[in-house]
Amino acid sequence: MAFTEIAYDVADRVATLTLCRPERLNAFTHTMRVELIEAFDRADADDGVRAVVVTGAGRAFCAGADLGGGGGTFGHRERGETVEGAPRDGGGTVALRIARSLKPVIGAINGPAVGVGVTMTLPMDVRLAAESARFGFVFARRGIVTEAASSWFLPRIVGIAQAMEWAATGRVFPAAEALAGRLVSRVLPDAELLPAAYALAREIADNTSAVSVAAIRRLMWSGLSASSPWEAHAADSRLMAELGGGADSVEGVTAFLEKRQADFPMKVSEDLPPGVPSWPDNPYGV
Amino acid sequence: MAFTEIAYDVADRVATLTLCRPERLNAFTHTMRVELIEAFDRADADDGVRAVVVTGAGRAFCAGADLGGGGGTFGHRERGETVEGAPRDGGGTVALRIARSLKPVIGAINGPAVGVGVTMTLPMDVRLAAESARFGFVFARRGIVTEAASSWFLPRIVGIAQAMEWAATGRVFPAAEALAGRLVSRVLPDAELLPAAYALAREIADNTSAVSVAAIRRLMWSGLSASSPWEAHAADSRLMAELGGGADSVEGVTAFLEKRQADFPMKVSEDLPPGVPSWPDNPYGV
Amino acid sequence: MAFTEIAYDVADRVATLTLCRPERLNAFTHTMRVELIEAFDRADADDGVRAVVVTGAGRAFCAGADLGGGGGTFGHRERGETVEGAPRDGGGTVALRIARSLKPVIGAINGPAVGVGVTMTLPMDVRLAAESARFGFVFARRGIVTEAASSWFLPRIVGIAQAMEWAATGRVFPAAEALAGRLVSRVLPDAELLPAAYALAREIADNTSAVSVAAIRRLMWSGLSASSPWEAHAADSRLMAELGGGADSVEGVTAFLEKRQADFPMKVSEDLPPGVPSWPDNPYGV
Repeated sequence: MAFTEIAYDVADRVATLTLCRPERLNAFTHTMRVELIEAFDRADADDGVRAVVVTGAGRAFCAGADLGGGGGTFGHRERGETVEGAPRDGGGTVALRIARSLKPVIGAINGPAVGVGVTMTLPMDVRLAAESARFGFVFARRGIVTEAASSWFLPRIVGIAQAMEWAATGRVFPAAEALAGRLVSRVLPDAELLPAAYALAREIADNTSAVSVAAIRRLMWSGLSASSPWEAHAADSRLMAELGGGADSVEGVTAFLEKRQADFPMKVSEDLPPGVPSWPDNPYGV
Repeated sequence: MAFTEIAYDVADRVATLTLCRPERLNAFTHTMRVELIEAFDRADADDGVRAVVVTGAGRAFCAGADLGGGGGTFGHRERGETVEGAPRDGGGTVALRIARSLKPVIGAINGPAVGVGVTMTLPMDVRLAAESARFGFVFARRGIVTEAASSWFLPRIVGIAQAMEWAATGRVFPAAEALAGRLVSRVLPDAELLPAAYALAREIADNTSAVSVAAIRRLMWSGLSASSPWEAHAADSRLMAELGGGADSVEGVTAFLEKRQADFPMKVSEDLPPGVPSWPDNPYGV
Repeated sequence: MAFTEIAYDVADRVATLTLCRPERLNAFTHTMRVELIEAFDRADADDGVRAVVVTGAGRAFCAGADLGGGGGTFGHRERGETVEGAPRDGGGTVALRIARSLKPVIGAINGPAVGVGVTMTLPMDVRLAAESARFGFVFARRGIVTEAASSWFLPRIVGIAQAMEWAATGRVFPAAEALAGRLVSRVLPDAELLPAAYALAREIADNTSAVSVAAIRRLMWSGLSASSPWEAHAADSRLMAELGGGADSVEGVTAFLEKRQADFPMKVSEDLPPGVPSWPDNPYGV
């Protein structure tokens, strides 16, 4: 697949995924949706990718759904998003795909991130914002609802009071309010946004086992869904047994004791142990 | 029903619900409990109400259960609160009613909010505090437990460490500590408390679809209970299909494109789509 | 059992549990694991203990698993941790034991708390840090995974974004970063760490019913696992009925009305009501 509405580049073991319709402030379309999912499939399959950075081309991150269709934009029939006859929100398919990424995902949010432009960032691991960023959960102003499973993600990230204040008002707010409300981890001058995202990606790539990070990412996001700590204990006990005697663990401990950089031999594409929690692609079992 | 221990007023599309036993610092009684539930039923049924503000008359918000009965106050037999023979905590019936409100609820906390006086505010969407406010989860000092489902709400709002510190000490603490611990969103000079609550209510009323806000409120609070993001995705996919082609969505998008204020035609009383998550009134299925 | 790798002391109604292998920075061993579980059993059974403080001897809290075994340290066979043939992570057995403590637990973290040295603190109620403390979820740097059910605890304490940033980088970070990320409640000069922990423990011991605090602790940690607020409401309704007419409640309310210190008669060892949520020791039902 050749991408037309996103760009996908790999450098220095980091994949950069750029939303790329700058003339439309990177507004979200059906094509962009399909390409985003494909890009995450590609990053997961490539052992040369240790982390994914998502950003926007030009002066926006993503202005939300493309409203070029006018008042009928959100009509279900027009969108044609169903699975076995049941409707399926398009933004949610992207959000759930990001949630089950095997590589850590860093959102580098430049300019407006509104509607699906912000909800798609919620299943990313870390969100960094440029000073120019602004955010809006504007759904109630468009007569629809918070989508992309954001009713699950948002209150777990910022708390229910902050989530409800933003969702009930539909207010567009600046980076400083996003930081105070803990939607983003840091606010940076625009020129420092991508360097900060890459520094974090390289901190991961330079120091850790790719298999450990993939397993931990699934454990942690599953853990946020787990019904109890015993369920988490069962899952991590299994993974400690599977990985504890493995080549990466031997190398990790030995390198630490020898006070040198570790060189981990295992690969996500081949060596992911069976205990890594699976994370279904959708709620209909398709 | 004529209210005797609360006041209920509607103005400018906002219902104000005032706890009104100022001579007893608005201490909570069986009558107040019944009236609060009735008031939320009334607000939900009235399309002229877009948001609810809850506050206290006089110098307190609510000093907790009325201890006029002395040492036996919390005796179960005395309270007579059962459903089909099972005991049922009175504060919890109010908390669960507020949680399933179709209108956003803003707590405007003036003076003491102690015991059930603070736990009843946890299912409100936003809590604003006056500088005079003070808080106490004092249950362990009275030989009882954190009630009103606060063991569910409180750690999800302030985190388990802060929740346990307040609940295990039973400490009474000032507004500044509540703000630092993220129990309240803002602390305001007393004279600015109600104006700030109304400004937030009007930001909602002036800009959003009432049906969207009702659906989002149920989605979000249900989402905090949902077992996984797929469950949330199934729920929001259905609502996006139901609302996406509806009159409010057409008006919301059209108004945005025409850069004018939207005039949403749909009504909560008539047009709530079937996909809005239901939220049972109590755990016994009655 | 005579303890060899921890110290257990009771004074002024507070048990102090000191990790005690200072020559190895209190590195975690099988023996320490068994002794920690035994110590929490002892504290729960002793009505003379109202709170537990956990700290480290010497200049560390706990440097993590003892890596004296070299590269094979985390090998499952070497660790021999199974229940009915299924693997069982050792750190997790301690974490789950702490989670079901009937007494509130305060971590007083001095110096390094790394690997299981930090994950074991997550089910404690409050974490206080000395300025000398530093933290690391270093598992990905050792080729293993976040253990001790930390995939459940950590994102619920610090949020998923902070949890993933720390877990994916495996970074070692200072007390100030732990405070900013809400992993600890306060940072204190080293000399003030234990006094602050004891002051908090005494605030609990001096003012509250031991039975209330035990019941609240189980309610609150269970509440964090509960699937809905109705489940919590059913649990707290039952406890309000069981405790509301009890001797501690009568004394608590009477003392409050008489403006004197309460003298609660009930004992955790004898008077815990049947409604206190049980909290199984492990996920295998053994």
